[in-house]
Amino acid sequence: MADSIKAQVEQQMEIIRRGTAEIVPEDELRQKLYDSLTNNQPLRIKLGLDPTAPDIHLGHTVVLNKLRQFQDLGHEVHLIIGDFTGRIGDPSGKSETRKPLTEEQVKANATTYQEQIFKVLDPQKTVVHFNSDWLSQMNLVDVLNLAGKYTVARMLERDDFAKRYKENLPIGIHEFMYPLLQGYDSVVLKADVELGGTDQKFNLLVGRQLQKEYGLKPQIALTMPILEGTDGVQKMSKSLGNYIGVHEDAHEMFGKTMSIPDELIIRYFELVTQVPLEEIRSMQKAMAEGSLNPRDAKIRLAKEIITIYHDAEAADQAENRFKLVFSQGSIPEDIPEVIEQQDEVWLPKFLNDHKLVSSTSEGRRMLQQDAVRVNGEKYDEENLTVKDGMVIQVGKRKFIRIRKP
Amino acid sequence: MADSIKAQVEQQMEIIRRGTAEIVPEDELRQKLYDSLTNNQPLRIKLGLDPTAPDIHLGHTVVLNKLRQFQDLGHEVHLIIGDFTGRIGDPSGKSETRKPLTEEQVKANATTYQEQIFKVLDPQKTVVHFNSDWLSQMNLVDVLNLAGKYTVARMLERDDFAKRYKENLPIGIHEFMYPLLQGYDSVVLKADVELGGTDQKFNLLVGRQLQKEYGLKPQIALTMPILEGTDGVQKMSKSLGNYIGVHEDAHEMFGKTMSIPDELIIRYFELVTQVPLEEIRSMQKAMAEGSLNPRDAKIRLAKEIITIYHDAEAADQAENRFKLVFSQGSIPEDIPEVIEQQDEVWLPKFLNDHKLVSSTSEGRRMLQQDAVRVNGEKYDEENLTVKDGMVIQVGKRKFIRIRKP
Repeated sequence: MADSIKAQVEQQMEIIRRGTAEIVPEDELRQKLYDSLTNNQPLRIKLGLDPTAPDIHLGHTVVLNKLRQFQDLGHEVHLIIGDFTGRIGDPSGKSETRKPLTEEQVKANATTYQEQIFKVLDPQKTVVHFNSDWLSQMNLVDVLNLAGKYTVARMLERDDFAKRYKENLPIGIHEFMYPLLQGYDSVVLKADVELGGTDQKFNLLVGRQLQKEYGLKPQIALTMPILEGTDGVQKMSKSLGNYIGVHEDAHEMFGKTMSIPDELIIRYFELVTQVPLEEIRSMQKAMAEGSLNPRDAKIRLAKEIITIYHDAEAADQAENRFKLVFSQGSIPEDIPEVIEQQDEVWLPKFLNDHKLVSSTSEGRRMLQQDAVRVNGEKYDEENLTVKDGMVIQVGKRKFIRIRKP
Repeated sequence: MADSIKAQVEQQMEIIRRGTAEIVPEDELRQKLYDSLTNNQPLRIKLGLDPTAPDIHLGHTVVLNKLRQFQDLGHEVHLIIGDFTGRIGDPSGKSETRKPLTEEQVKANATTYQEQIFKVLDPQKTVVHFNSDWLSQMNLVDVLNLAGKYTVARMLERDDFAKRYKENLPIGIHEFMYPLLQGYDSVVLKADVELGGTDQKFNLLVGRQLQKEYGLKPQIALTMPILEGTDGVQKMSKSLGNYIGVHEDAHEMFGKTMSIPDELIIRYFELVTQVPLEEIRSMQKAMAEGSLNPRDAKIRLAKEIITIYHDAEAADQAENRFKLVFSQGSIPEDIPEVIEQQDEVWLPKFLNDHKLVSSTSEGRRMLQQDAVRVNGEKYDEENLTVKDGMVIQVGKRKFIRIRKP
């Protein structure tokens, strides 16, 4: 009996470990899973959402996918919409004080969040909380009691605080409260596990510490890696323009997914799809052996993603249109890439700069003669808003792919 | 007209400057006094009281006497009983986290404070506030707004925080809130001047800074020196046993005042009495010239102090009794002093240790023969509770004065 439970614990652990950066501490998680199975009591898995970025992109879904795996293992997901803490701003990984959101912004963002999140999570196994429910009840005595459970020195150990303190950049004292309030959410919720990106590790451990201080069983901190954007280099981020938004239409998702570097294919499968680990491993093997064309793996990846955020039909349509546009134009596999800083370019000069034409006047002529294609489609305007992964074609043979820095 | 006001400002400044350690900034105080006289509007002078020490001693009255001077100049005193902040504890000048008081302790202390304080202050020109009136109304949003107006780095510049941080001694994050809450009191009160000991300078300047942040005219920080105790060396403090309590009976006050070192006489006159500055200066001159016996100056000092906390009659009685006891016993001016660590001593050994007798058995015999006097009065018990300044006499000629370390 106990042995069979232990075997189940290990099965769960294998799924939970998929793609994780760190589980602190892993042994305690194993014990919690054991107790959960023994008592038939699902674990309470917490994710705090700071509603500053209402448009979720795939980078955000890395933790959501992990939550979905917990749900599929029978556990209970508790989302905390940080409607209260969002009004302070989260200084994680930032080197300057972030401006607080207004109450209206926070509310609008929270609504958008919920709409998007249930494309990944099972609403039946998800409880949504708003931390204003308990934080707005706190008075000064409660706040001081909470603040007394953590020291200045330990707070200053957090990477970004340490860096700012060292560089004489201001840290508002209210910013020290944010990790404490986030940790207090774990106390109120009695969370068993809290998820976050690797940049949240410190905050997750504050929650663990505070639970101990309040006499509760401490939560496990489970961190997920930060997903690289379509450029394959920087963290996926809206401001860097290298993101795939979950609200984008299927064609856009397809094209952007096709533009990611081949080295990211497996990582994306692991972190943003629910394709079983064995299948991912065999694709990896097949690509390494040359029996699977990375392009085909990417098509599968694109369809998996579209199926989550739209549906299977939309995925098929996007595939068909992509193939039609790109295959008929015979876009080759290897296209030279250029970095473009500007968001908008004047094509005659841009084409000349990158040797697709020999002069700006030739560039203008090619445009007039319908010899220029953008992502396989004819383009005749002189100005172009450039996006990461965009393919520019002049005539039959000349291609470049644009990369945003 | 303006010139006459300027002259009045300078008159007030002379009185205000008496005994002060620092006025930050002095020019702004001069301007505030000018405006006050021009508009016939008294200044609002703030003193925050942290009710952790209910028994006020002369050390505490240094700021009270300064407040009294402000009152005599027509200004308005606002006392803040820190009934709320007392529950957190004031870490000023301490190297460890002080335990918070219970609500009951705070209340009892606040009552005692008020009883004692009006022996110095004019109740007609004093408004007593309890900071729980506004602090208990603060919610988390208010707290975060307040905390956001000050930085971690500036808070860590406070001497005691800097020291503890450097020495890896814990500083609770709630301790960072204390100076902010004290400063917030100044915002609520719209204080023009805040008084405190030199160890409070940082906190007073936080109040000044916060008033600016809240769009108010910043207060002046006026600090008073820390009064030395009857030993003339260490800060007057109950725990060091070198204090003169305002609740003590007149005879005790008289005796303790007579035991202070001569070098402190003028300082005590300046800081704990309202004797006009010119009189103090002439006594100083007279002592320097030898025309005034320091003993007589001390008698005047003792009577001034007793008159404040009891009345003139009590002062006369105490003087008479003191003279009777000490003069009849012919206690000489110069008595050797000994440091005693213990609070209680076994006299036969004590007398022997200090060569007042040649053996413990002689000591015991002297006690039995009524040849031992304590502060001039016959003493025949073998155990003695020693106090700072106590005079022990054996026979006619042998004297020592006890000093507590």
